[in-house]
Amino acid sequence: MNRQVILASRPKGIAQSENFEIVDRPLSPLNPGEIRIANRFLSVEPAMRGWIADTSNYAAPVVIGDVMKALAVGEIVESTDPDWNVGNLVTGWFGWQQFATVTTKEIVRKVDQTDLPVSLALGVLGINGVTALLGLTMAGEPKPGDTVVVSTAAGSVGSAVGQIAHILGCRTVGIAGGPVKVAQCRDLFGYDMALDYKADGLGPALDAACPDGVHVYFDNTAGMISDTVYPRLAQAARVVLCGTASIAQWDPWPSGPRVERHLLVKRARMQGFVVLDHFDLWDSAVEKLTNWVREGKLRYAEDISDGLGSCPDALAGLYRGENLGKRIIRL
Amino acid sequence: MNRQVILASRPKGIAQSENFEIVDRPLSPLNPGEIRIANRFLSVEPAMRGWIADTSNYAAPVVIGDVMKALAVGEIVESTDPDWNVGNLVTGWFGWQQFATVTTKEIVRKVDQTDLPVSLALGVLGINGVTALLGLTMAGEPKPGDTVVVSTAAGSVGSAVGQIAHILGCRTVGIAGGPVKVAQCRDLFGYDMALDYKADGLGPALDAACPDGVHVYFDNTAGMISDTVYPRLAQAARVVLCGTASIAQWDPWPSGPRVERHLLVKRARMQGFVVLDHFDLWDSAVEKLTNWVREGKLRYAEDISDGLGSCPDALAGLYRGENLGKRIIRL
Repeated sequence: MNRQVILASRPKGIAQSENFEIVDRPLSPLNPGEIRIANRFLSVEPAMRGWIADTSNYAAPVVIGDVMKALAVGEIVESTDPDWNVGNLVTGWFGWQQFATVTTKEIVRKVDQTDLPVSLALGVLGINGVTALLGLTMAGEPKPGDTVVVSTAAGSVGSAVGQIAHILGCRTVGIAGGPVKVAQCRDLFGYDMALDYKADGLGPALDAACPDGVHVYFDNTAGMISDTVYPRLAQAARVVLCGTASIAQWDPWPSGPRVERHLLVKRARMQGFVVLDHFDLWDSAVEKLTNWVREGKLRYAEDISDGLGSCPDALAGLYRGENLGKRIIRL
Repeated sequence: MNRQVILASRPKGIAQSENFEIVDRPLSPLNPGEIRIANRFLSVEPAMRGWIADTSNYAAPVVIGDVMKALAVGEIVESTDPDWNVGNLVTGWFGWQQFATVTTKEIVRKVDQTDLPVSLALGVLGINGVTALLGLTMAGEPKPGDTVVVSTAAGSVGSAVGQIAHILGCRTVGIAGGPVKVAQCRDLFGYDMALDYKADGLGPALDAACPDGVHVYFDNTAGMISDTVYPRLAQAARVVLCGTASIAQWDPWPSGPRVERHLLVKRARMQGFVVLDHFDLWDSAVEKLTNWVREGKLRYAEDISDGLGSCPDALAGLYRGENLGKRIIRL
């Protein structure tokens, strides 16, 4: 039998526990070309909200009754493909379930950094780290000396963005919610400045932290924090749009202060970035990130819960801002 | 004596007649390095709104009591500079006045296309045409087969954008206000489709006109028209922000539907463009535009009024959408 977390109903806004159901389904024998993986760690991403929403997104939504789409790390326990052997550790689109039956196209890569925790393949050496590196460099184009502002600065993407910007010679300003995350930004992730958006006066705090304006804004929020950053963009600034965590619902579509005049007057650019477009660059990105982790230049935090029973509330918990580090579920 | 149109008071929103005053001031003898120009044609630009506003803009605003900043074409009538001779036709920052006393840095270029009307140096062979060519190609990056949507499509910038996009092998969809401008878009400027935003159903009309979505959106409005275009952007679309004509005032700052999710989901880009950053490319742009005009591939419309007395209401008239073609004042 295979225990799975399935999408039971289409959520309005952020998915809650009741939108998921845990079911046991029989495992069928493998067909030729298939590989069976015993999942060890399951990933929880803010982007899952989009993967299950009806609203326009970059992929068709998960079908009601299907296992929840998720990245995971697991061990191959059965294989009909000579290139993939029993015992190999792999990461890929294995879903929130005990066992995944996949073809090679669902596998993202072998996990062969045996000196590092395998769970990192879901965070700093996985989609979050790769998003940070490629999004920052391709869409943000940071130059040494630039001031880089990061929202959700203590999150699994944001924390990597801040550190990579630092490695590339930028001044970094992190924005996070509450004193614990702000301290984590400063002490663990090494931001030059860390600001608490839940405290009063984010605008004046940004003015003080960015006397030359904001050259690169890496954003995962699309809400009040962004509205405070946009008027402070420097000439020729680059805004990387990577997530919209501040917006609980896109139906009805929310309004905010218009961005056009800021972008025009500052000759600035705003660019949407989706890492799933760049699987061709994944391996080289992971190699770079792995080296930085080994050298101690790229630090990470993980927030690990146990068991499939943690899955249904995991996404809602992420949006409540409860986690301190990459949210992972260990099986 | 020199008759001048001066900025008499700082406007709230769009400048009206009463914000300007016509005065006569004596001309002083030239200092070394100075050149005196008798203006023949004065330009009226939507961007003038920004040049006189207190709100954040790309240049310091015109000082109260100073002659209104404007591009113009004129003839040199006195010169202390051996490179610039009496009788030369020149275009540059000569202001809304009869005579301009300038140094070479205010001169943009000599006007030597003697086979074409000299007034074109203010429109299709001046700031409007150059904005269209450089904005479209540098920020819009159109590829053959792309669908290019243009707002203020019958305007002096928009009409050139549509025709240049056509020359570059794109499908063009123009959006303009009212049946006269829509007919001008179709019949004079050769848009593949022309839509009337003042009629009902701009959204469905855009859906029909752009079955593959909008690859490039060249915008001069930043209002309701844009809000209708953004949800229809194609994957990897480019939005060129060139003006904000739909917004009467930026104080208080207006709101609109949030753009971030459209840009993220479509991996699209929005980029502010100010042609004044690109004087180094001006001459080569004018050369290209001149060839297209001579070949009959780039058509233009001019809306010419006579006398300095037409100046005070000219900008307000532009924002009332009265003009059919580039607004020019002949002296």
